[in-house]
Amino acid sequence: MRMSQLVGRRIKEDPKDAKTVSHKFLIRGGYVRPVSAGIYSLLPVGKRIVAKIEKIIREEMNRVDGQEVLMPVVLPAELWQESGRYESVGSELLRFKDRNDKPMLLAMTHEEGITHLVRTEINSYKQLPVMLYQIQTKYRDEARPRAGLIRVREFTMKDAYSFHTDQADLEKYYVRCHEAYVRIFRRLGMKNVLSIEANSGMMGGKVSHEFMAICDCGEDTVITNSDHSYRANREIAVAAWKFDKGEPLPLEKVHTPGAKTIEEVADFLGVKAENTGKAVFYQDARTGELVFVLIRGDFEVNETKLGNAVRIPELKFADDAAILAAGAVPGFASPVGIDGKKVRIVIDRSAAESGNLVVGANETGYHYKNFNFDRDMAGAECLVADIATVREGDPCPLTGEPLVFSRGIEVGNIFQLGTKYTESMHCEYLDRDGKARPMVMGCYGIGVGRAMAAVIEQSSDEYGPIWPLSIAPYQVQICAVNPGKDNVGEVCEKLYADLQAAGIEVLYDDRGEKAGSMFSDADLLGIPFRLVVSPKTLADGQAEFKLRGSRDAERIAVEEAIPLLKRKIEAENAKYL
Amino acid sequence: MRMSQLVGRRIKEDPKDAKTVSHKFLIRGGYVRPVSAGIYSLLPVGKRIVAKIEKIIREEMNRVDGQEVLMPVVLPAELWQESGRYESVGSELLRFKDRNDKPMLLAMTHEEGITHLVRTEINSYKQLPVMLYQIQTKYRDEARPRAGLIRVREFTMKDAYSFHTDQADLEKYYVRCHEAYVRIFRRLGMKNVLSIEANSGMMGGKVSHEFMAICDCGEDTVITNSDHSYRANREIAVAAWKFDKGEPLPLEKVHTPGAKTIEEVADFLGVKAENTGKAVFYQDARTGELVFVLIRGDFEVNETKLGNAVRIPELKFADDAAILAAGAVPGFASPVGIDGKKVRIVIDRSAAESGNLVVGANETGYHYKNFNFDRDMAGAECLVADIATVREGDPCPLTGEPLVFSRGIEVGNIFQLGTKYTESMHCEYLDRDGKARPMVMGCYGIGVGRAMAAVIEQSSDEYGPIWPLSIAPYQVQICAVNPGKDNVGEVCEKLYADLQAAGIEVLYDDRGEKAGSMFSDADLLGIPFRLVVSPKTLADGQAEFKLRGSRDAERIAVEEAIPLLKRKIEAENAKYL
Repeated sequence: MRMSQLVGRRIKEDPKDAKTVSHKFLIRGGYVRPVSAGIYSLLPVGKRIVAKIEKIIREEMNRVDGQEVLMPVVLPAELWQESGRYESVGSELLRFKDRNDKPMLLAMTHEEGITHLVRTEINSYKQLPVMLYQIQTKYRDEARPRAGLIRVREFTMKDAYSFHTDQADLEKYYVRCHEAYVRIFRRLGMKNVLSIEANSGMMGGKVSHEFMAICDCGEDTVITNSDHSYRANREIAVAAWKFDKGEPLPLEKVHTPGAKTIEEVADFLGVKAENTGKAVFYQDARTGELVFVLIRGDFEVNETKLGNAVRIPELKFADDAAILAAGAVPGFASPVGIDGKKVRIVIDRSAAESGNLVVGANETGYHYKNFNFDRDMAGAECLVADIATVREGDPCPLTGEPLVFSRGIEVGNIFQLGTKYTESMHCEYLDRDGKARPMVMGCYGIGVGRAMAAVIEQSSDEYGPIWPLSIAPYQVQICAVNPGKDNVGEVCEKLYADLQAAGIEVLYDDRGEKAGSMFSDADLLGIPFRLVVSPKTLADGQAEFKLRGSRDAERIAVEEAIPLLKRKIEAENAKYL
Repeated sequence: MRMSQLVGRRIKEDPKDAKTVSHKFLIRGGYVRPVSAGIYSLLPVGKRIVAKIEKIIREEMNRVDGQEVLMPVVLPAELWQESGRYESVGSELLRFKDRNDKPMLLAMTHEEGITHLVRTEINSYKQLPVMLYQIQTKYRDEARPRAGLIRVREFTMKDAYSFHTDQADLEKYYVRCHEAYVRIFRRLGMKNVLSIEANSGMMGGKVSHEFMAICDCGEDTVITNSDHSYRANREIAVAAWKFDKGEPLPLEKVHTPGAKTIEEVADFLGVKAENTGKAVFYQDARTGELVFVLIRGDFEVNETKLGNAVRIPELKFADDAAILAAGAVPGFASPVGIDGKKVRIVIDRSAAESGNLVVGANETGYHYKNFNFDRDMAGAECLVADIATVREGDPCPLTGEPLVFSRGIEVGNIFQLGTKYTESMHCEYLDRDGKARPMVMGCYGIGVGRAMAAVIEQSSDEYGPIWPLSIAPYQVQICAVNPGKDNVGEVCEKLYADLQAAGIEVLYDDRGEKAGSMFSDADLLGIPFRLVVSPKTLADGQAEFKLRGSRDAERIAVEEAIPLLKRKIEAENAKYL
C-alpha cells in the first residue's frame, strides 16, 4: 500500500477526551474514528489489525474443534423472555419494536441464540460435545462508554459456546479452551495476560476465568502473589487471614453519645477499628428480604461474596424502614439479640474469629464492649462465612506472602455455565438410555477491538504503538526521504515491488514529506520493521534498517533488505508459536 | 470435518413456507435457520460458503484498489438527517432511541456513514480517487420478508464507495468496478448474471447497473433481446415503437353513456384499445402538484420514467378533489382544453404520434373521437416523452427484434451517485487551485447471503444444491458404506487424513448410516466431488468417484483418489479465473 493513497489521517495532537494510551494512539494513528459515543468506525489500518486478530482467534477456535456460525444482531425478545434475561438485564440491553410492533432486541451476547439453535439441531448424546463460535457485532447500550475501544457500545466479539452431556465433559473441554486462550493472547503478542478466577455474575453458573491484560489504565483490579500462582479479581479474592480471639472479657454496655461510625466509636473508646464489629444491613433487591451482616470494623463487605453465600443474585443496602421493622436501631444495630427468624444473619469470619469487639447495643447512643461471637450469639441462627473484601498486602491464601494489586483490562472470559440456559430453554439431549437431560454448557468470549486496544496499552512508547508482528497492519514500512533526488524514488519503487513479490506486507511512504513528519507518521503506525532510503544512504548503496521499538538503526545494503527481512520475519513469527 | 460432529440437521421434508428452491434447500441442507421473520442464523456449512464468497469479493475489491473498513451497524440519526434520508426513507429504516434518548438507527446502507468518514479524512485532490468498502451487517425492516435469504431483514452486505474529483474520473472507475463485478459473479460460479441499466431510485444519481442472476423465482423482470446486447429492467426499458398518425379526421364529441374504462369505451365505440387515449392524473407525493398524463389505451404508464421526465422523485395517483379543482372531470378528463398553467401535462409518444384517438371530452358521459395531438393541442404547454412501460414482444431499440422478459434476482448493483451526498453533507476537497469542491461519488453493493441463495437457484437438481467448487462448503465428501465391515472404516480414515494432509477440504461421513440416507444427505450438501467406499468397491481395492451434478460414477483405485482429485480441483479452479 502506498501511503499517498492510504485513507486515515495521522493527527499530531492528543484528542481532548482521550485519557488512555490506546485511545490516544488509535485516534492519532488513523486506526479508528468515533461516530457516536462508544461507536467507532475502523479505518483501513485498524481493520487490517482486527482481521489479523480474528484470523488468529479463528485458527485457535478451530483447533479446539470449534465450528463457526453466524447468529443475527437483531433477536426476537421471546428468546430472552424464555431465559428470563429480557426482564433481568438492565437498560444496557437495547430493546425496540419492529414495524409490526414485535418486541426485538440488539443482542449483547448470544447464550439464548445459541441455545435455541442447538436445541433444534442436536438431540442425541452421540452428537455431543460440540463447540460453536462466531465473530460478530454486538451492541450494549452502555451508560458511560469510555477509553476508546476499551468500553464501547458497539463492538466485535468472538463468542463461543460448548455443549456437553455432563459437567465432567464440560470441565475437560474447559481446560482445552483455557489453553486455546493462552495461545491466542500469546499469538496476539500480548506480554502480560493473566487468567484469574472470577465470579460469573449475570452469566450464571460457577467456575469462570477472566483473562486480564495487565496495564495501568485497566479498570479491573487483579490480585496476585509474587509468582502469580494465586490470581483472582476483587469479587472473589480470599486471603489467609489469621484472627485472634484472646481471652473473652465480660460483655459491657457503654454510653457512646454521638458516635455512630466505626471511626467515631473507635476514637471515642480509644480502640482500633480492628477491635470493633460493623453491622451492615442488605436487602434482596427483588424480594426485599433483609440480611444482617457483621464484619470486623477494619474490613469491607464484598457484596459478590455475600451474594454467593446467601444465594441472592442482587443485593442492595437496606432502607431504615426495613431495619426498624426488624426491630433494629439503624446506626446502633447489634448482633446481640437479633432474631435469625426475622432476618438472615451473616457473620464474617473476621468478626466471628476475633474476640472482645465493640458492637452496637441496639439502643441509640450505646454500644457493647467485649462482644465474643461464640459466647454472645450462642444458639443464634446464623451463617459464618468469608464475605470480606481483600486488601492489598493481605496474606496470600497459597503462600502467605502479601497480595499485590494490579490493574487489568478484561480481554477474554470463559465460563462454566452449567444448565442455566439449557434448563430454562429446554435444550435437551437423549442419553444412552433414551432419557432426556439438559445439556451442560460453557461459554467463551473475546472482545476483538478491546484486544487491539490492550495490545497498545502493553506495547507503545511516547510516539505511538509498537505492534507485534503477528497483528501489525503491515510488516515493513519503506520511507523514501527526498524521493525526487538521486534515484531514491526509483530504488524505493523497486524495493516496494520486490517486497510485495516476496510476499511481505509493505507500506510505502511515497509522499515526499519531510523526514521528521514522515517518521512521526511511521511511529504512529507502529510497523515493526522500517527501511529508510535517502540520498545519503544511497550514496553507499545502502538503506537504514530500524526496528520500531528501538532507537538504533543499522545500515544495510539495499539488496540485502529482502533476505534480511525474511529472516527477521521468520524469527519473529517463531516467537508466537 | 466428520459428519458425526457437524452441527446442522438435514431435513427430509420441504419447509411449509418455502416456495423457492434456495429457501427449501438452505433449510433442508442445514445451511441456515430462521430466528425470526427474515432473520437467519448461518450454520457451519452455510458460514463456510459465505466465508468463501466474502473472500472472493474481498480479493476483487482489493484488486480495484479498495481499502477495507468497518462502519457501525448503529448510527446516530443526525447523519441521516444531514442527507435528508432520515425523513425521506420509510419505515424500512429502523429508528430507535438509546438509553439517553438520543435518536439512532440501524443502518440499511452506509452512504451517510462513509461520506462522514471521508469528509474528516480527505481534503485534497492529491488523495483522490479512493475506494473504501466493508463487508458488514445491515438491517432493513422489511414489511414482508420472504423467499429465505432472497429478501430478509438482517443481512450481510459488501458495500463499497468511491470518491473522485470529477464525474469523468468516477466514470472511468465505474467501468473498472463493473469489470470487478463481472469477475466476482463468474468466480462465484454463477452461470447467468446480466448487468442491466437501471434507474437508481432512492439512491439518487443517474447511471446505475443492476446485476441480475437470471432464474425463475426472481422477483425482478429483466428485459433483453436475443444476444443480450440490450438489457434493461422494467423501470427504464424502452422499445423501438412505431406509431401511425394516419389522415386526421374531424374532432367529434360522442355520447358514451356508462362507458368509463378504456375497455368499455372501446367496446361501445367498436374500436381497439390502441385507438384510444387514456388520461391519468398523478400528484407529486410531497407538494401535491398535479400531473396530467395522456397515453395510448393499450399502454401502461411507467411511473419511474414519468418521475424522471417531470423530475419528481415520488408520485402518487391524484385524488378526485385535486382533479376537480383543476377543472377536469374524473373518468372523462380530456387533453383538449386542459390548462398547462394549472396542471403539468405529459403526453406519451404513443398518444402524441398516433392519430384519430378516442379521448375524454371533460364532460360526464361524453368522449371525443379523432383526437390528433398536433392539431388538437397545438400551442398547449406540455411535455412529450416516452413514459410507457415496455411489453414483452415490443421491438428492441437496438435490433428491432421482439424483447424477451426473464425473471432475475438482483445480486449486486453499482451506482454513479454524483454529488447527492457530498453536497448535502459537505464532503469537499481542495482542487489544484485551492478551491473547495464536492467530491463525486459512486457506490457498489453485493448481498452476500442473497448471492449464496442465487447460486442455488441457478445450480441445483431435485435432490439439492450443486455447489460450484469455488464456494462449496467442502471440496470432497467421503461416504463410508458399512464402515464396520471389511476394513471400510480404516480405509476411509486413512483417506480422510491423507486428503487433509494434501490440503483438500474434506467432509467425511463416518456415521455408518444406510447408503440411501447417506447419499441424500450428501446431495443436500452438494459437495462437488464424492468418494464412496464400500465392502463391494474395496473388494477390488477401489472407491467410487462421482461428481455431484452427474448420475454416473466411476471406479478408481483407492490410491488414485488423491492425485485424481488434485487434478480435478486444479482444472475446475482454472474455470473461475
